[in-house]
Amino acid sequence: MAERKESKKYTKNTNNKTQSKNTQKSRSQKQAAPKKSAPKKDVKNNTQNRKNNKKPIKIIPLGGLGEIGKNITLYEYDGDMFLVDCGMSFPDEDMPGIDIVIPDFTFVLENKDKIKGLVVTHGHEDHIGAIPYLLRNFNVPIYATRLTIGLIEGKLKEHKLLESANLNVVKAGSVVKLGKFTVEFIHVNHSIPDATAFAIKCAGGTVVHTGDFKIDTTPIDDKVIDIARFAELGKEGVLALLSDSTNAERSGFTASEKLVGGSFSNLFRQAEGKRIIVATFSSNIHRIQQIIDEAARCNRKVAVSGRSMLNVVSIAEELGYLKVPQNVLTPIEAIKNYTPGQIVVVTTGSQGEPLSALHRMAFSDHRQVEIAPDDMIIISATPIPGNEKLVTKVINELMKRGANVVYERMYDVHVSGHACAEELKLIMSIVKPKYFIPLHGEQKHLMKHAELAQLMGINKENTVVAQNGSVIEISEKAVKSTDAVTAGRVLVDGLGVGDVGSIVLRDRKLLSDGGIIIVGVTIDAVTREIVAGPDIVSRGFIYMKESEELIQEISDLVWDIMDRCYYQNIRDWATIKNKIKDGVSKFLFTKTKRSPMVLPIIMEV
Amino acid sequence: MAERKESKKYTKNTNNKTQSKNTQKSRSQKQAAPKKSAPKKDVKNNTQNRKNNKKPIKIIPLGGLGEIGKNITLYEYDGDMFLVDCGMSFPDEDMPGIDIVIPDFTFVLENKDKIKGLVVTHGHEDHIGAIPYLLRNFNVPIYATRLTIGLIEGKLKEHKLLESANLNVVKAGSVVKLGKFTVEFIHVNHSIPDATAFAIKCAGGTVVHTGDFKIDTTPIDDKVIDIARFAELGKEGVLALLSDSTNAERSGFTASEKLVGGSFSNLFRQAEGKRIIVATFSSNIHRIQQIIDEAARCNRKVAVSGRSMLNVVSIAEELGYLKVPQNVLTPIEAIKNYTPGQIVVVTTGSQGEPLSALHRMAFSDHRQVEIAPDDMIIISATPIPGNEKLVTKVINELMKRGANVVYERMYDVHVSGHACAEELKLIMSIVKPKYFIPLHGEQKHLMKHAELAQLMGINKENTVVAQNGSVIEISEKAVKSTDAVTAGRVLVDGLGVGDVGSIVLRDRKLLSDGGIIIVGVTIDAVTREIVAGPDIVSRGFIYMKESEELIQEISDLVWDIMDRCYYQNIRDWATIKNKIKDGVSKFLFTKTKRSPMVLPIIMEV
Repeated sequence: MAERKESKKYTKNTNNKTQSKNTQKSRSQKQAAPKKSAPKKDVKNNTQNRKNNKKPIKIIPLGGLGEIGKNITLYEYDGDMFLVDCGMSFPDEDMPGIDIVIPDFTFVLENKDKIKGLVVTHGHEDHIGAIPYLLRNFNVPIYATRLTIGLIEGKLKEHKLLESANLNVVKAGSVVKLGKFTVEFIHVNHSIPDATAFAIKCAGGTVVHTGDFKIDTTPIDDKVIDIARFAELGKEGVLALLSDSTNAERSGFTASEKLVGGSFSNLFRQAEGKRIIVATFSSNIHRIQQIIDEAARCNRKVAVSGRSMLNVVSIAEELGYLKVPQNVLTPIEAIKNYTPGQIVVVTTGSQGEPLSALHRMAFSDHRQVEIAPDDMIIISATPIPGNEKLVTKVINELMKRGANVVYERMYDVHVSGHACAEELKLIMSIVKPKYFIPLHGEQKHLMKHAELAQLMGINKENTVVAQNGSVIEISEKAVKSTDAVTAGRVLVDGLGVGDVGSIVLRDRKLLSDGGIIIVGVTIDAVTREIVAGPDIVSRGFIYMKESEELIQEISDLVWDIMDRCYYQNIRDWATIKNKIKDGVSKFLFTKTKRSPMVLPIIMEV
Repeated sequence: MAERKESKKYTKNTNNKTQSKNTQKSRSQKQAAPKKSAPKKDVKNNTQNRKNNKKPIKIIPLGGLGEIGKNITLYEYDGDMFLVDCGMSFPDEDMPGIDIVIPDFTFVLENKDKIKGLVVTHGHEDHIGAIPYLLRNFNVPIYATRLTIGLIEGKLKEHKLLESANLNVVKAGSVVKLGKFTVEFIHVNHSIPDATAFAIKCAGGTVVHTGDFKIDTTPIDDKVIDIARFAELGKEGVLALLSDSTNAERSGFTASEKLVGGSFSNLFRQAEGKRIIVATFSSNIHRIQQIIDEAARCNRKVAVSGRSMLNVVSIAEELGYLKVPQNVLTPIEAIKNYTPGQIVVVTTGSQGEPLSALHRMAFSDHRQVEIAPDDMIIISATPIPGNEKLVTKVINELMKRGANVVYERMYDVHVSGHACAEELKLIMSIVKPKYFIPLHGEQKHLMKHAELAQLMGINKENTVVAQNGSVIEISEKAVKSTDAVTAGRVLVDGLGVGDVGSIVLRDRKLLSDGGIIIVGVTIDAVTREIVAGPDIVSRGFIYMKESEELIQEISDLVWDIMDRCYYQNIRDWATIKNKIKDGVSKFLFTKTKRSPMVLPIIMEV
């Protein structure tokens, strides 16, 4: 692959002539398989019509199905492969101590030689967050729009992988050639600018892969989703549609981002003389643009707080995605020079994250911002499932400090970035796919999306609710889901990638539920008598200073057990340890109805 | 207190004559303080008018403010006290291993002699769940309606406290005398039958305490909330209203329980030939009644699954709150004798609780019920904040087994038990209190409820958003919030009540985030040389079998540290332990960016 920061405008109706340089070396891009590249195995069919020469396209979702996050999909045609997206997800409550979760790359790494590139739909963490972990093992060329590449660069810099990376900026409307595939980037609306869907073509047919999207007819940057191109593809004939299921359960249409601007305008007027603090997702650059615009209109300065907010604002401004009027931004350290009525603080923490700037403000732990009754705080986001209690905690704490907090249902201070049912149906109606594969979502979202497809007249047999690792084969004739490949989750804890598995997690769970009791004993190797201990130490079980009696009882019990082992001539350490473990566990459960982990440590002198 | 299972119907307008026996020995019940019981301290004011003789009523919320759950409020007038409710709450995510949370009873126990009784609004856990823990230390007489007493009895039986308890059934409309107070039970609607509000009267004035309530004009038992009585009280004059804030953030009215019946009717028709499984709260007896009624109409048998569901159904049927037609109930073991279309299973687990019956069905761990594509599963509940992910997990799992799952927004299969904004306003408008104290809710709910009060014309100064432990003094003249008393949370873990405190919880959190590394060393007491170890054992940090190299490095490091201590003539065990702890922690953080707990155990021989 020799592509290097190339991009060409895709010109409609002259498909063959205007392919970007990327594709010059390649064979003709006609929809049907060209005769030159007749499949090797099907020699006896060589004389049949072109339709029969087509091989099935394989679509292998390696992440993002049955879950929210870590989106990654592999496409294969006739031995050539490429990847769409490479995201991370956040740990569940049953993964204590885990920082992030990434896809299992086993199948990707096994097929390094076949994989021609990674195309990325947009710059959200659930689509780019695992890229550094992939690039460590496989320096795959990456194709994405400018902002997305900018955000990936920031990420690779942190991981010291930027130098070696092969990053390629592609404009929406352009086409990238990846082996026997071409991938056309199509502009869509989402809660981050520069988001794209893909029209994936090969001799086997055309597949439309939406990525995350919504239909916003009045977006902040005036760039409406390229409905016309989806419609054209629909007319040309689309074999399969893979579409975003996140909001499939929600009826109707997702409101336009502009709606939020109107709410800001009202709220800023109400907050005259008060300081305004707005928490939102740092990647929602259009939201931030609206805050800045409204602040400028009200002659307020905007200060940015939170590492990721500072980071994204600087990248977005540099790349021209955020337009900041002169003298509006001010460093957070300088807000003390202004009256509350002259300030807007834009901050991270809309999900109640314990280390975020808003959380620190709420708990009086922020260096520059102390919450007071003359603050109006706008939480311009909805809690992601699982974060509800964290967000509520922050809201309650801010309110205890007297602040006026605006959140959730109270005003229209947030809109989703994902298409609701009517938008999903609209896309199906114009793309008119033969097969439908719901992407991005838990089982319930995928099922609901599949139901919508059936409402739109797509046969149930032509709809595949797949799992991570499913190998979906599609051809003009049929769709089938065959053997699964390795796909799963890999846990990242500190610098460790994949070294925390189910046993370690189970132990963490046990430790957090009941704590630990350690029984230390030193034995004479010859006489096998106890020469030191038993020392009983506990953590997370009971407060030891208040439980001397219980500790003494455990110690006595261990003496008894060791004595019995001695007289029964039990010499095997494993057996003795198990006897201590069982004895102490039973004793403690009877006495306290609790089950701390019991860990005997026997040393020999 | 000599009350014993007495109850009298309260007859309006003839207040003095129809007081129950309870009050016969007491002084007159006129609204104003009778002259006989002139306050001792105010001798010099004895000749002033009655108004001036009134003392302030003290209201001390000991739980339920700034939180959801563990509701308990103490009232005091002129040295006499009583309690309203005594509930538990569920542990937060920052309380691993904790079973339940109960109020801190310190202040209650300090005032045992003054407390004349405990009146209970209704039988939900957040209002009765802590009663056994109170009764262990203080056998206070309890007054509640019949179903509530039935549920309390079940609870006390489990705790072996039933024999000694002083339980008194009170009918809605009756009045109980508690020292210088009378408490009138007023029927309200809620998601459990037999729920009541209280009109609390003493010489200091009348206070209305709503408990949990909603206004249901078409309840299943035809007993509409006694609006007329609230209105009468409003006319007579109410000093303060304490009201349920749970749904204060929701606009409009809460729908009637009847709505759910209609949805059941539609869904049961759709499910012809399929097995129906409905998960709901076991205490929602009217919901269960509607399921049973609909099942009977469809000639289906009803099987009950889940311990608490079996328990409540049996109590409710026995007491006449659940009316089951003959031959409709069947044991869960017998469902195999019927076709799917002949069965409805009513089950616990609507909150996704890991040990509940529905959870076990979802994960193929239920003895009698295996989920299949011919199951329609109705989750007739909304996730309680914090349970969203648990519920979603169960839904996804049920769907993976092919079942049709109906939940949340899809149909009207659940209505709330709490009043929304318009109902709250309505109650304020007819009770017309001078002072308003929002009860039951997190800060955001209380604040929103206070806002509603201000909309209704109650002065901001007359609205008290209090905290647990606040002492609110109200009199005709003024309301003030004075010194706080001890109020907080006590954690119950197994048999331990209050023995898990912040240190143990902190350790559990540390252990669950990073696991533990134990360094065992045995030292010669004389030479101070290492005679055994260092033994390195880890749990919840890394999988030891795969980390031999790291374990060896830790071991080498401990040798180094011990050596250095030896040569520096450091003899103090505490210092040596700290050096090992710090050294190993630093080494591991540099190496892995993780922070397991490091615990050195040094034994001397």
